[in-house]
Amino acid sequence: MAFTIAVVGVGLIGGSFALAAKRAGIADRVLGVSSPGTLEKALALGIVDEGLALEEAAPRADLILLSATIHSIIETIPRLRGLARRDAVVTDAGSTKRAIVNTAAAVDGMYFVGGHPMAGKEKGGVEEADPSLFHGRRWVLTTDQGTGDPRFDRLFELVKSIGASPVLMNASGHDAAVARTSHLPQLLSTALAASLEQSFQHEAPVLAGPGLIDATRLALSPYPVWKDILETNRDQISAAMSEYLEEWRAQFEALSREGDLEAQFARAAAFAKRLRE
Amino acid sequence: MAFTIAVVGVGLIGGSFALAAKRAGIADRVLGVSSPGTLEKALALGIVDEGLALEEAAPRADLILLSATIHSIIETIPRLRGLARRDAVVTDAGSTKRAIVNTAAAVDGMYFVGGHPMAGKEKGGVEEADPSLFHGRRWVLTTDQGTGDPRFDRLFELVKSIGASPVLMNASGHDAAVARTSHLPQLLSTALAASLEQSFQHEAPVLAGPGLIDATRLALSPYPVWKDILETNRDQISAAMSEYLEEWRAQFEALSREGDLEAQFARAAAFAKRLRE
Repeated sequence: MAFTIAVVGVGLIGGSFALAAKRAGIADRVLGVSSPGTLEKALALGIVDEGLALEEAAPRADLILLSATIHSIIETIPRLRGLARRDAVVTDAGSTKRAIVNTAAAVDGMYFVGGHPMAGKEKGGVEEADPSLFHGRRWVLTTDQGTGDPRFDRLFELVKSIGASPVLMNASGHDAAVARTSHLPQLLSTALAASLEQSFQHEAPVLAGPGLIDATRLALSPYPVWKDILETNRDQISAAMSEYLEEWRAQFEALSREGDLEAQFARAAAFAKRLRE
Repeated sequence: MAFTIAVVGVGLIGGSFALAAKRAGIADRVLGVSSPGTLEKALALGIVDEGLALEEAAPRADLILLSATIHSIIETIPRLRGLARRDAVVTDAGSTKRAIVNTAAAVDGMYFVGGHPMAGKEKGGVEEADPSLFHGRRWVLTTDQGTGDPRFDRLFELVKSIGASPVLMNASGHDAAVARTSHLPQLLSTALAASLEQSFQHEAPVLAGPGLIDATRLALSPYPVWKDILETNRDQISAAMSEYLEEWRAQFEALSREGDLEAQFARAAAFAKRLRE
């Protein structure tokens, strides 16, 4: 039985998904929906078999992957009403899940499972597509529309067959978790680098060691990606920032009152070690 | 003319300095002052030629390197009164400089130049000593006792001859700079990991990517080292934390008022890029 995938947004993630699904023998045909320039490259690279408009591609697909910015995914979802087949599964690769899953829940007759592949590369773009990108990476699948459905199982098996580990959680749990493990570290790194930019405006920061290089790596992230993430996860990120501030305060008070930070350092090291196990 | 070095605290830094100075053909003889167990290893490894007490080693040395914890350096300095020769240069490898340089300034007849080699390894100890440790690394030399002195020049040339780049600054400038480039990033990483340890107490933080690994690397640092650093640089670290908090606040307000962080991200990325040039 032929299996057709439509990838809406053929960049690094969408392109890698298409290549991986073909290599795993799951996708017989890949339809690409993207800008003309991107489609031209994707066709030349053999990543998609046809470049089409959304209206043509969606009704032919057994699986639709929306792989673009969060706002673009949210704009695309209502357009799938009546286009996506009832037996198809629609999924996405956005970095926050509540806004996307809620938008999809309002589209009758469409079966949607939110997704978040925890994979990436420093450089994006369809030229960087790599069928091994998801090997050994976690891939969140949201359970908000239930999991006891053959369409869910089909997506679950596909994620496994391209080498990723599916992690099932609801959209709220996902957004709370990534607010702490991804969005908070991003903001800390940005705030640190922005603060140092003020301190060292006219001098080279000559005393920088490898610790500062690590601590400012995320500060290189492009804002447009983060704008969408911040806008669709405000409450959880604010909560995570407030939790962080408690620890900042304990440090600041320890410095002014000659207090001790041994317990905080021990807790922190315990977490950092657990993360590396 | 024979040149004798005394290394007080023969660990990774002291041992590497001894090896590097010998390899560069500068030290004819290295006297080690350390615990009996460490001296035994250092002698076996050919890192020191003799293991002695401070009282025996100091009068024989043309250069004395104090390479231990900040508090131990501060305790050792007054003991050098009348022991260190007037034509010798005494230096150290502590991570903060004001407390050490001020202690040394009170010892009449001793010429002291504070030092901070910006080098290290994950594992410490004399067994890790490596004559190439300082290659291409910056080595701060404090200018508080002036630089127009042959004893200063001798230390300066030695630092260069072992492959490091001497950076001249006064102790206050050093402490202000490292508060921002080293101590602040350490505290941020510790606070982040401590905060996440609270959030993920009973679960594995399954959604952690490489960004979180980078962001929590410093949180693995041992507290005893940092206890001394925090105690001897309280004012500058507090100031750096307050500067950081301004950026945190801008983020928190942008999240609650749906504001924009584009300018902050741009400043941060500019700094992070400059750091990598």
